[in-house]
Amino acid sequence: MKTRDRILETSLKLFNGEGEAHTTTIDIANEMDISPGNLYYHFKGKDQIIAELYQQYELALGSTLSAPIEQPLSAEKNQVEDNWYYLYVVMEEMYQYRFLYYNLDDILQRYPDIRKGFKRLIQLKRASLFSICQNLLQQDIIDARDQQLLGLVDNMTLTLTFWFNYDQLLHDGRPPEITIHQGVLQLLTMVAPYLGDDELTFYRDCEEIYANLLQGTE
Amino acid sequence: MKTRDRILETSLKLFNGEGEAHTTTIDIANEMDISPGNLYYHFKGKDQIIAELYQQYELALGSTLSAPIEQPLSAEKNQVEDNWYYLYVVMEEMYQYRFLYYNLDDILQRYPDIRKGFKRLIQLKRASLFSICQNLLQQDIIDARDQQLLGLVDNMTLTLTFWFNYDQLLHDGRPPEITIHQGVLQLLTMVAPYLGDDELTFYRDCEEIYANLLQGTE
Repeated sequence: MKTRDRILETSLKLFNGEGEAHTTTIDIANEMDISPGNLYYHFKGKDQIIAELYQQYELALGSTLSAPIEQPLSAEKNQVEDNWYYLYVVMEEMYQYRFLYYNLDDILQRYPDIRKGFKRLIQLKRASLFSICQNLLQQDIIDARDQQLLGLVDNMTLTLTFWFNYDQLLHDGRPPEITIHQGVLQLLTMVAPYLGDDELTFYRDCEEIYANLLQGTE
Repeated sequence: MKTRDRILETSLKLFNGEGEAHTTTIDIANEMDISPGNLYYHFKGKDQIIAELYQQYELALGSTLSAPIEQPLSAEKNQVEDNWYYLYVVMEEMYQYRFLYYNLDDILQRYPDIRKGFKRLIQLKRASLFSICQNLLQQDIIDARDQQLLGLVDNMTLTLTFWFNYDQLLHDGRPPEITIHQGVLQLLTMVAPYLGDDELTFYRDCEEIYANLLQGTE
């Protein structure tokens, strides 16, 4: 592995673990057992590292978020499970760069470019969740009421964006799988009541998936 | 007005307007045209000011949040409007201390006491929203499915907590009334689909209140 990539990997680990604000380039060099000068040869400071990590993140999450827009899931009976795993993947990718979310206000204030990119990602989250909802609700009444559908999608986008913060406030130190699975359950809870006669089956499936996955992580 | 109260009022104004991180006690003294020594006589530093502002906030919001738990709204036909105004009042109180929300991660890390108080407030938000939902959904199917009701209440609490951050990211600089009214609409959008046959009427009422209020703020 190249030194440059190791610097990025180590920085991400420290930012996520210790908080971005509490990590200096000296900490990163120490953790890697290289000299600060060697680190400086690759990155002129923490700003450059954060900018590059953000680019990685936007590229990875952007590609995942585009999937359901470009190719909606086919309407089959295991749609609940498919959507569950899809949303799990989205949240897991977010979790890998969770330092961004745990210090969001500060980072977005300090880096106007990341702020712009983050707004793009939120719009992409909305488009992706809109596509999932439309697909799930194809035969349902909600199509007729656009304002309500947009409201639903905004609520889901907000939860997807701030779930880690909310979860950390209420349950500091839970295993990440539980945090992520409950996040997915919260998102699908918002869609369930729009499914008319299928609501009960859909929500029971969700509860079952959640219960089984929790057992698996114990 | 006593100097002590003027210091608190001026601090709140500057924290909300300029951001708490960008405001020093010197800024506060300058804004009030008093000497730093005079300010120091009342507060030994910014920490003490923030702690006292937080106490004010928790007291005010706590009292508002307790109202629907202690005395639920009577089931009358203007419940949509009553709930709308109630949630508007809650959000308006939050907005008055919005500096807390715009710099939440940082403030909660620096002040463990505020972190504890903030967790109490979130639990109170949940209890309050739970009471509102139960009241709205009295004759409805949702009672039977507790997990789903708890999921709904958690989603509402999360939106109530992070709405200002989400709105600021997407629509920086909107008039506060619009931000707050859309926040209320987002919250009631989550309840609407659980109202069965009343859903359409309820949501149309919400849309109408929102449209009228927007016109009033233009």
